[in-house]
Amino acid sequence: MKKKQSKSRLKIIPLGGLEQIGMNITAFEYEDSIIVVDCGLSFPNDQMYGVDLVIPDVTYLKENLDKVKGFFITHGHEDHIGAIPYVLREVNVPIYATKLTIAIIEHKLEEHNMLKKVKRKVVKYGQNINLGAFHVEFIRTNHSIQDAAALAIYSGAGIVVHTGDFKVDYTPVYGDAIDLQRFGEIGKKGVLALMCDSTNAERPGFTMSERTVGNTFDNIFREHQNNRLIIATFASNVDRVQQIINSVNKYGRKVVVEGRSMVTIITIASKLGYLNIPDNTLIDIEQLKNYPDEQTVIITTGSQGESMAALSRMANSTHRKVTIKPKDTIIFSSNPIPGNEKAVSDVINDLAMKGAEVIFQDVHVSGHACQEDIKLIYSLVKPKYAIPVHGEYRHLIAQAKVAEQLGISKDNIFILSSGDVLELDDEKAGVTGHVQVGDILVDGLGVGDVGNVVLRDRQHLAQEGIIIVTVTLDMEARIVMAGPEIVSRGFVYVRGSASLMDEARQVVQIVIERFLDKNSMEWNKLKTDIKDALGDFVWKETKRRPMVIPIIMDI
Amino acid sequence: MKKKQSKSRLKIIPLGGLEQIGMNITAFEYEDSIIVVDCGLSFPNDQMYGVDLVIPDVTYLKENLDKVKGFFITHGHEDHIGAIPYVLREVNVPIYATKLTIAIIEHKLEEHNMLKKVKRKVVKYGQNINLGAFHVEFIRTNHSIQDAAALAIYSGAGIVVHTGDFKVDYTPVYGDAIDLQRFGEIGKKGVLALMCDSTNAERPGFTMSERTVGNTFDNIFREHQNNRLIIATFASNVDRVQQIINSVNKYGRKVVVEGRSMVTIITIASKLGYLNIPDNTLIDIEQLKNYPDEQTVIITTGSQGESMAALSRMANSTHRKVTIKPKDTIIFSSNPIPGNEKAVSDVINDLAMKGAEVIFQDVHVSGHACQEDIKLIYSLVKPKYAIPVHGEYRHLIAQAKVAEQLGISKDNIFILSSGDVLELDDEKAGVTGHVQVGDILVDGLGVGDVGNVVLRDRQHLAQEGIIIVTVTLDMEARIVMAGPEIVSRGFVYVRGSASLMDEARQVVQIVIERFLDKNSMEWNKLKTDIKDALGDFVWKETKRRPMVIPIIMDI
Repeated sequence: MKKKQSKSRLKIIPLGGLEQIGMNITAFEYEDSIIVVDCGLSFPNDQMYGVDLVIPDVTYLKENLDKVKGFFITHGHEDHIGAIPYVLREVNVPIYATKLTIAIIEHKLEEHNMLKKVKRKVVKYGQNINLGAFHVEFIRTNHSIQDAAALAIYSGAGIVVHTGDFKVDYTPVYGDAIDLQRFGEIGKKGVLALMCDSTNAERPGFTMSERTVGNTFDNIFREHQNNRLIIATFASNVDRVQQIINSVNKYGRKVVVEGRSMVTIITIASKLGYLNIPDNTLIDIEQLKNYPDEQTVIITTGSQGESMAALSRMANSTHRKVTIKPKDTIIFSSNPIPGNEKAVSDVINDLAMKGAEVIFQDVHVSGHACQEDIKLIYSLVKPKYAIPVHGEYRHLIAQAKVAEQLGISKDNIFILSSGDVLELDDEKAGVTGHVQVGDILVDGLGVGDVGNVVLRDRQHLAQEGIIIVTVTLDMEARIVMAGPEIVSRGFVYVRGSASLMDEARQVVQIVIERFLDKNSMEWNKLKTDIKDALGDFVWKETKRRPMVIPIIMDI
Repeated sequence: MKKKQSKSRLKIIPLGGLEQIGMNITAFEYEDSIIVVDCGLSFPNDQMYGVDLVIPDVTYLKENLDKVKGFFITHGHEDHIGAIPYVLREVNVPIYATKLTIAIIEHKLEEHNMLKKVKRKVVKYGQNINLGAFHVEFIRTNHSIQDAAALAIYSGAGIVVHTGDFKVDYTPVYGDAIDLQRFGEIGKKGVLALMCDSTNAERPGFTMSERTVGNTFDNIFREHQNNRLIIATFASNVDRVQQIINSVNKYGRKVVVEGRSMVTIITIASKLGYLNIPDNTLIDIEQLKNYPDEQTVIITTGSQGESMAALSRMANSTHRKVTIKPKDTIIFSSNPIPGNEKAVSDVINDLAMKGAEVIFQDVHVSGHACQEDIKLIYSLVKPKYAIPVHGEYRHLIAQAKVAEQLGISKDNIFILSSGDVLELDDEKAGVTGHVQVGDILVDGLGVGDVGNVVLRDRQHLAQEGIIIVTVTLDMEARIVMAGPEIVSRGFVYVRGSASLMDEARQVVQIVIERFLDKNSMEWNKLKTDIKDALGDFVWKETKRRPMVIPIIMDI
């Protein structure tokens, strides 16, 4: 009894920002050791005007710097690796991941001039890393990027299995199927908790094999032998690119790769042998004109309708090398990520208006496990506790329901919020505290200097524009030296509103005269009075509330 | 031969703004007469910061005011009636529509204080309106709002059938099924052109009957006898509301209606007899507390995740009367309109986080015809020309393909852009010209004063913020009287960037001193120099490009 009570409990702490999605980063703490699984970023939501990226607040790791032993990265997607260059600057410990994942991370570190500063270690499936009070085993899985891994995390409190993002693909394009045997074997030892990917937990059934898309490509190539093919897909889906290359070869075409991220990943994957492009298949975009259209294929970025991506530029005629022609066939080998539906549809419309055929249905399979796949993993691992991860809240809830169906009691299922400290051992589990977490906004070179005040101002400016009032006073003589001048931006087009601006100036003038007459020295009161008077006047005239900035100078 | 040549051709001119979607408004011109079908608005896209609505530029109608005889409205949705209060101010002719449609239009006119200024005429199905060189017959259809009509437009050039928005519902909730016999009868006479709804032209198969949703509600009510039900749907879908009311009665509950537009439509529909609510069913929201939760149902707006709608306020705990409880069941009886997916998902997540069950799949059917329904209408009408209408470009293209499958030659299918003038008679058809069209932006009281310049400024302000530089000079003495002062908004939070602003002031000071030393009088040059120097400095330091506004005053 005594021994058992002295045994420590394991802490699991998701650190992924304020929202449930994006920014996968989870701390595991046991006694004097912390290891971190993944280190992702997320992309700004609609309200985060002008923000480039969002990274997690890792104050908790910084405050426990001596405990932190290393980062374990499950795969090379941005929402799992994107914050590494920022976080590792402050928490500089080694990174452990599989070969392709490390190569993608290295490219990222190089872009941030940090390659020499961060230790990396390539791990093989089946390998065990001993680090502080933990050892961590990498288990082969399948996903929409190669070299994805699940992790078995061993500590004195028991084994936690973290699936990473995964699907069950019995016939993958590259490498072997997910190591279901090992999941079963570890399950037999007794697993404390399963942290399982929830992305597709609302979808019944099984996720199709990536290989099925290859057949679809073959059909499209066969039916479009007189058309140039332009295929958009996710840059990091090397297996997808491989299958396009396979069809390209079968039908004797040449292929161009377009879009920076696509070129980057294909270069890395080819060098490491994850992608096999036969000689004389790849041509440079400049060589396109040397081949008849129907003998060429362009693989491109832009499958999410991203406005600056290559396909979007082709669609709106701003791409410098590729002009869409009526005989082109454009294939979206992707589904829109939630939130991108409209942008994708706009690109489809633009392409259709140029007369091109656009194929956007059923040329894609998901990289995430559906309900029956999730049930398979639970049935192999048979965990005591279920901790659904990766997805919006609705998806975590959906997995919780699946877990319940499999006989896990509601009390043993935990849907964590960021910052929650879940303490667990084989006797009990529960949230015992909360640590600081948050969204850190990256805008240009600024990390964290765009906060709520700046965002609120940007929202106000975006919706209503700005009116600037400047006036120079001689406070001793109590006279106006210059102005008031009124300048507006984003409010109304000035030429059409000259008289409105004239009246606005009179409104301000009256306020200033009253101030000067009263012999008041209260600048702030004057500013507030100008703001109020002008704001009221403009609202009455236009039913708009632009930001009003009075600038008063004294000579 | 001679007689035939002297016969006039019919002109069909879509006037619906720059985009293909929204703003349904089409002019039909024959000899000295113009009639207009529908008069809709559209909602601003993501780039139209601060804009409330978009209405069509009807310059063409204003320039031909003496010809314009009347507006024919197919049904009461915003994208078909929303611009009436704006357009009828300038083109004041009578409006013809069915009873419910007129009632909804009257409510809208009343809100704009225009009820007395506009003539309305209620038309029955089968009725013919003679107006100038046209007569127009209203034909019963089905849609997601009652009293929808197709129009048969007769002129000397032949008959044009315009379906409006429609579906084929053999078992509608209210009234009769679409008048397929009449479509066939008119088809037999020989129809020049069919203008058919394209919204669902990408979808194979048939659209389900509205009545099927009633069974779904019954099942949900039966399975949730211990839960309060909160049901979100489109305010204008009175049949949907009727079916909820039917289940409410069957299960002996009380119902509250929440959300302004929902209350408006239900009031209108009840008064006219389109909605049948038994006595003692409807209760006021204040009475909710007098009934056990499981005996109540709330029908609410917000099915599209609109941030100000009742359901969104319940979800984010800002609704003053309704608090979401873990035992609540919330039902989305709707699909997200393209572009709203993310907003809807956010509301679902918020509700799920409060522990409520959220049902959002398969509690909705579309109000638009799918491919097989479209084929049915073509086969009844058998037009010489096909003019797909209503939908994004991709949808129009999809209908064109359907029409081709039915044997209409490609040359006889016209996908029109806004402003195109299609001239047609039974011998030939083609686009012969183009008239002015455009998007007029409504922001507050301003109609059209927010143009591209203002939008571009708002976009710039939203992304990057603003830096204002003010300085007062004595140009004769060549000295600085006051300033330079630097104020920023939406750029960086000032406290964190005091030194950046200090350095910025020095950059500006150098430019001003150089200007004063040179004895230059070129103010504009000074402004440009300040802009450039400060812009470069800020870019170098932050990789951001805020709007820079120099304001220079002379005493």
